[in-house]
Amino acid sequence: MKKKIGIIGATGYVGSELIRILMNHNYVEIVAISSNSFKGENLSNIYPNFKKIINLICGTEEEVVKKSDIIFTALPHGFSENIAKNLDNDKVLIDIGADFRLDSEENYFAFYNKKFNNPKLHANSVYSIPELHRANVLNQNIIANPGCYPTSIGLGLAPAVLENLIANNSIIIDAKSGVTGAGRMANENSHFISCNENLKPYAIAGVHRHIPEIEQIINGLSDNNYMVSFTPHLLPINRGILSTIYFNLNTDISEESVRNLYKKFYKDEKFVVVLDKNEIAQIRNVKGSNYCHISVHKDYRCNRIIIISVIDNIIKGAAGQAVQNMNLRFRFNEDEGLNLISNIF
Amino acid sequence: MKKKIGIIGATGYVGSELIRILMNHNYVEIVAISSNSFKGENLSNIYPNFKKIINLICGTEEEVVKKSDIIFTALPHGFSENIAKNLDNDKVLIDIGADFRLDSEENYFAFYNKKFNNPKLHANSVYSIPELHRANVLNQNIIANPGCYPTSIGLGLAPAVLENLIANNSIIIDAKSGVTGAGRMANENSHFISCNENLKPYAIAGVHRHIPEIEQIINGLSDNNYMVSFTPHLLPINRGILSTIYFNLNTDISEESVRNLYKKFYKDEKFVVVLDKNEIAQIRNVKGSNYCHISVHKDYRCNRIIIISVIDNIIKGAAGQAVQNMNLRFRFNEDEGLNLISNIF
Amino acid sequence: MKKKIGIIGATGYVGSELIRILMNHNYVEIVAISSNSFKGENLSNIYPNFKKIINLICGTEEEVVKKSDIIFTALPHGFSENIAKNLDNDKVLIDIGADFRLDSEENYFAFYNKKFNNPKLHANSVYSIPELHRANVLNQNIIANPGCYPTSIGLGLAPAVLENLIANNSIIIDAKSGVTGAGRMANENSHFISCNENLKPYAIAGVHRHIPEIEQIINGLSDNNYMVSFTPHLLPINRGILSTIYFNLNTDISEESVRNLYKKFYKDEKFVVVLDKNEIAQIRNVKGSNYCHISVHKDYRCNRIIIISVIDNIIKGAAGQAVQNMNLRFRFNEDEGLNLISNIF
Amino acid sequence: MKKKIGIIGATGYVGSELIRILMNHNYVEIVAISSNSFKGENLSNIYPNFKKIINLICGTEEEVVKKSDIIFTALPHGFSENIAKNLDNDKVLIDIGADFRLDSEENYFAFYNKKFNNPKLHANSVYSIPELHRANVLNQNIIANPGCYPTSIGLGLAPAVLENLIANNSIIIDAKSGVTGAGRMANENSHFISCNENLKPYAIAGVHRHIPEIEQIINGLSDNNYMVSFTPHLLPINRGILSTIYFNLNTDISEESVRNLYKKFYKDEKFVVVLDKNEIAQIRNVKGSNYCHISVHKDYRCNRIIIISVIDNIIKGAAGQAVQNMNLRFRFNEDEGLNLISNIF
Repeated sequence: MKKKIGIIGATGYVGSELIRILMNHNYVEIVAISSNSFKGENLSNIYPNFKKIINLICGTEEEVVKKSDIIFTALPHGFSENIAKNLDNDKVLIDIGADFRLDSEENYFAFYNKKFNNPKLHANSVYSIPELHRANVLNQNIIANPGCYPTSIGLGLAPAVLENLIANNSIIIDAKSGVTGAGRMANENSHFISCNENLKPYAIAGVHRHIPEIEQIINGLSDNNYMVSFTPHLLPINRGILSTIYFNLNTDISEESVRNLYKKFYKDEKFVVVLDKNEIAQIRNVKGSNYCHISVHKDYRCNRIIIISVIDNIIKGAAGQAVQNMNLRFRFNEDEGLNLISNIF
Repeated sequence: MKKKIGIIGATGYVGSELIRILMNHNYVEIVAISSNSFKGENLSNIYPNFKKIINLICGTEEEVVKKSDIIFTALPHGFSENIAKNLDNDKVLIDIGADFRLDSEENYFAFYNKKFNNPKLHANSVYSIPELHRANVLNQNIIANPGCYPTSIGLGLAPAVLENLIANNSIIIDAKSGVTGAGRMANENSHFISCNENLKPYAIAGVHRHIPEIEQIINGLSDNNYMVSFTPHLLPINRGILSTIYFNLNTDISEESVRNLYKKFYKDEKFVVVLDKNEIAQIRNVKGSNYCHISVHKDYRCNRIIIISVIDNIIKGAAGQAVQNMNLRFRFNEDEGLNLISNIF
Repeated sequence: MKKKIGIIGATGYVGSELIRILMNHNYVEIVAISSNSFKGENLSNIYPNFKKIINLICGTEEEVVKKSDIIFTALPHGFSENIAKNLDNDKVLIDIGADFRLDSEENYFAFYNKKFNNPKLHANSVYSIPELHRANVLNQNIIANPGCYPTSIGLGLAPAVLENLIANNSIIIDAKSGVTGAGRMANENSHFISCNENLKPYAIAGVHRHIPEIEQIINGLSDNNYMVSFTPHLLPINRGILSTIYFNLNTDISEESVRNLYKKFYKDEKFVVVLDKNEIAQIRNVKGSNYCHISVHKDYRCNRIIIISVIDNIIKGAAGQAVQNMNLRFRFNEDEGLNLISNIF
Repeated sequence: MKKKIGIIGATGYVGSELIRILMNHNYVEIVAISSNSFKGENLSNIYPNFKKIINLICGTEEEVVKKSDIIFTALPHGFSENIAKNLDNDKVLIDIGADFRLDSEENYFAFYNKKFNNPKLHANSVYSIPELHRANVLNQNIIANPGCYPTSIGLGLAPAVLENLIANNSIIIDAKSGVTGAGRMANENSHFISCNENLKPYAIAGVHRHIPEIEQIINGLSDNNYMVSFTPHLLPINRGILSTIYFNLNTDISEESVRNLYKKFYKDEKFVVVLDKNEIAQIRNVKGSNYCHISVHKDYRCNRIIIISVIDNIIKGAAGQAVQNMNLRFRFNEDEGLNLISNIF
C-alpha cells in the first residue's frame, strides 16, 4: 500500500516542486496539501501546469497532519516546530524549512533571532544531506532537510575536509543563486526589472543564515573548527546554485590527486558527479535534476584549491533532496521518483 | 522484450531531448545513436547532464539502422528520405525532420526548393498530430512527425475548422518561439547578444516553410481551402512557442460557445487543456511538458476570435510528440514516458 | 535663462528616465521633483545610478508646481487633471499619464471607468505624437503625451491610413512589450519568475485602455472609422515594444510601393526610420533611443500588409517623446537632449 | 578645430560602442573606420541603430591611419603593435587591445604566448586607468587602455593596497562578466542556449590573461609583490562586470575606517562612487555608464574585507575609459562625451 503524503506550504516554489516530483513516485500518493496564501483553492488554478494532471484543494494544516503518514513542511522558519510538537509517533516529518537544521541553539538565536521552543524535539531530529549523513536518517521521525547553499557547499567541501587538506581560516565561498531561492513573495527584490540584466550580492559579510549550517556540516565531519566567509549573489535565472569555493592547501598535493580523492569519495553516489580534468561545472548541466556536479581545480601559483559545485536549488537543494531523504527513511530505492534528467535548455 | 531504439542526429536539441524522454520509457531501450558533428564521442561529453545516467557513443547511421527496431531521425530536411528508402519492412521510421510532412510535392518544391526523390515512399508515409490523426498511425512504417509551429497552430485551429466557424481569408497567426527552435548551430542569429533583450520577427510575409504544413493540416480537416498569414518571432527564451491566432467569425456565436466546442473536442485528450474563462495560456505552464494549453477569446467589437495556443517546441513540438506517435504505433499507453510536468520555474 | 522643470511622479520608471534625459538637455534644469512612494528621500538612494550626478530630494506636488515653468506628470490616470485645474496660465503641463489622451469622454468612461471632471480643460489640451501632430503643440499649455503602444502603432499605420490603403475591419495588432511597461509596482505579474522564460498575453480581446487611443489616432487622420483588434503580450525583457500590424489592402499595390510611401512620409523625420527591403525591424536597434524603426512587408498570397514597428517604450513611448513635445512647444531643437543612440547590447 | 578620429576594428562590440560615445563628443569627429569582417559595408547595415545618425563606410587600416589624428585600435592582441610601429610622431594611438598592457615581456609570453616585436615601442607606451595613472598619459603617444576585469579590480583594490591593509597571499577575486566580454564571434560559448539560464566559470585557476595585468596594477602601487587568485564567470546578461574581491587584513581596522579610506581616495573622482554603509554595489547601477561603484564590507568573524566593484565592461572597461584617456591626453574635460547615466532598466 502506498504511503500517504501531506504537504504543508504546498504553494510555495518548493512545495509545488515537491508535488511535481512525487507525482512520479511509485510508492507514495499525495493525499492532502495546505497553503496559507490560497486556502480552499485548487492547486491547478494557482499553478496551471497541473491541469489534467492532479486535482488537489488546499486544506488546513490539521487536515494534512491527520490524513498523512509522511508530512513535508515547506514553511518559513519557526512554524514547523509547532507541527512537530503535536505529531503522532507513527508519523514522519520532513522539514524543508530551517527549524531543525541547527544543533546549536546559540547559533539559531544568533542567526535567526529565535530560541528553540522544544529543545527535546531537536535532540530527536536529524539533519541529512544523504551523501554525508545517510545512516542517520534510518530511524528518525523528524528529518531536517538542508538548505540549498549548504547542500552545494557541504558536498563541495566534504572530501577535502575528511582528508584534512584545508588550511585554517582559508575557506571562502562565493555563491550565486537563481531567483527561486528568494521565494514566491513579490517585492522590490524579486521584481523582474531589479533582477534581469543584473547581478547583486546580498546578506554579505558574515550574516547569512546558512553560515552556521555550513560550518556545522564541515566541522561535523572532522575535528577542525573551520569558519567560512560566505557571499551569496542573486543571478538573473530561475533556478540553480553555483558555489565557487576557495581554500588554501595545508599540504603539497596535485590537482589530480585532489580530484581523485573526490572521485573516490563519490564513486558510489548516484547523484554526485565529479568532473574530469578540463571540465568545469556549470548550472545548466544540473538544472531540473537532483544531481550535484563538482569540478576540482588547483591554482598552482597560489597553492589554492578551487571547487565549483552546482545544484538545482529547488531540487537537490530542497524538494528533491527531501524525497531522497524520505526514500532512505522508508527503504525505497534512493532514486525513486528522482530520475529527472537535467533539461539543459 | 523492449523495443530497440536508434536515433540519427542524436546531438541536436531534439535528438538529445528524445534521449532524455526515452530514458524514462518502460518499453523501449536506446541501443544506438549517431551524430554528424560528434562521431565517436560519448554523449555525456557533449551533454554533461547525461553523466552517470547513460553511456552512449555516437556511431554511424548504418549502425543505428541495423541495430534498431524503431529509428528516429532528427535531421535537416533532405536526409531522412534516403534512410527510409533502404529500410527493412519490419522497421519503423519516425522522421522528426520535414521530409515526409508535405503531401504535395509542388508545395515541397515551392517552400523547400527540392523534389521528392521517391514519391512512392511518400504515398506510404503518414503525417500525425496524434490528437488529429491518431487513427492513421496504427499500421504505417514511415511516420512524419509535425513541425513545432504547425503543432501549436493545428491544435489551436482544429475545432474551429471542423465547426466551420472561420470566415474565408481571415486567418492570421502571429507566432513566437524560443531559441531552441533555431537549432544548435552557432551563428549571428543565435548569438546571446542578438537574442537577449530583443524580439525579432523572421521569415516574414508568406515564406516560412511551415505555412504549407499548417494549411495542409486545416484544409485536411474540412472542405475549405484556407490560406494563412504566418509571422514567426524569435523570443529571448530557451523553449516554448506561443501562437496568437486570429480569425473572423462567419457566424454569430459567443465566446463561451466557442470555448465549449473546444473543450468538448479535447475532452478525452490527456495532452490538450482548454482553459476556462478569464484564463490566458502562457508558455511557462507547458514548458518542459508534452502539453498544449489553449485559451479562447472573442473580440466582440470586431467579431473576431483570438486563440492562444502554447506548447514546448522541443517536446510537444518535436521529441515528445514523436514518442507519442511511437506509443500509438506500437500500442503502448499514449502517455508512456511522457509524464512530464511543466517546470514552470 | 534655462527653463525650470518639475517632475511629479519622479520615482516611477518614466519619471526617472525623464530625469536621465533632461540631465543632458542644454536649455532646461530640473528644479523640483515629487514622489508619493519616497517623500523626503534623495533620488540617488532610490536610484543609485544618479550618485555623484544629481542631488534631488523628493518634495511635494505643490512645491513642484510652484517652482517650475514646465511640469511633467508621470502618474496613474486620474491625478493629472487635478493638477492641471489649478495651474497658472504661464505654466505648461506635459502629462505622460492618460488623463488628457482621449477626446471622447464616452470612451474614457468605457475604458477607464471615469468621467472628465473638467471637460473645459480637455478642450484646451492637445494630444501629440510629434511626427503626426506637430503643429498642434505650439501654443497649448496642456499637452497629452501618448501611450507607448499607441505611439508605435500610430507611427506604423499613419502613412497607410493617409493613403487609404486599408480595407475595412481588417486591422489586427499583435503587440509585445518589455516589463517596464507594467510599472514599478512589485506584484505577482512583475515577479521575475513569472516573466522570465515566459511570454504571456494580457488584457486580451478588446479591453486594453490603449484601444480607443489607437483608434483616435488613425481615425483622426482620415474620414474612416476603423476599429482594431489589439493583443498585448508581456516579453521577458526590460524595455522595448514591437508591434506586428496586419491589414488587408483595398487596392492592388506592391510591397515596394507601400514602402516608398512610408519612406516619403517620414523622409524628414529624425526619429523615424523606414527600413529597406529585406530588413526587419527588431527591438534591440531602438532600445535606449528615441527612434522608431518601421519595416514594411507584403504577404502576396493573402494580399495583406504586415508592418513591424519598434520603439523603446520608456523613451519614444514615454519620457523621450515628452521631451520631444516640450522641445516643440518651446521652440528648442526637436532633438535637444534626445541624441541617444540605441545601446544594442 | 575638431580632432580627427579613426577606429580600427570598428565593428566589434567595443568599436561600435566607441562610435556611439564619440558621436556626443564636442571636440572630435570620426573620419574613418575599418573592419576586417565587413570591408566596404556601411556601418548602419551592420548596426542598424546608427541609421539616420551616422554614415560611415568600413575602409582599410591604412586609410584610417592616414586620415586620423587619433587612432583607436579595438583588435585581438598582436595586431596593434604593427600599427604603432609605423605611426607618425604627431599621431596618438589608443590601443584597447592587449598589446601594450604588460610591461613584462616574460609575462606577456607566459600568458599570451607571444614576444614583443618592438620592445622600444613598449618602453614608450603608457598604461592608464585614469584614476590611478592620470599623470602618465599627458605626453605619451601610445596609450594602453586597460582590460575590463583589471579596471574593476584595480579600482577596487587600490586604496587598500596603498594603505597597506592586505595580508600577503590572501587576495581572491571572484569576477562575473556579461557576454559582450566574450566578443562578437558566434560560437558554442556565445550561443544563447549555452549562456541563458546558466552561469559558467571559465579560464579557471591561474590561467586568465588578465592576471598579470591585475598584479601589475596593484604591485605598481606599492612595494608589495601580491599574487592573486582570479576566477571569471560568464553571466547571462549583455553587459557589466561585478568583481567580488576578498582579502585578509594585516591590521585591526573597522569596516567604517576602510570605507572612509576608500571614500577619501576617490573623493574627487567623477567616475568612482564609494557606496555608504548597508549599500551593496550591483551591476544595474552602472550599466550603460562610465561609472565604477564600489562597496566595502568586513566579515568580522574572519577578519576579512570584501570589496564589491562593478563597472560596465564595454564602457568603463573599454570604450568609455579609452575616451577618458583621450580626454586626458588632449586636455579636454575628463568627462567630455561621457555624461552617460546608467540605464538601470
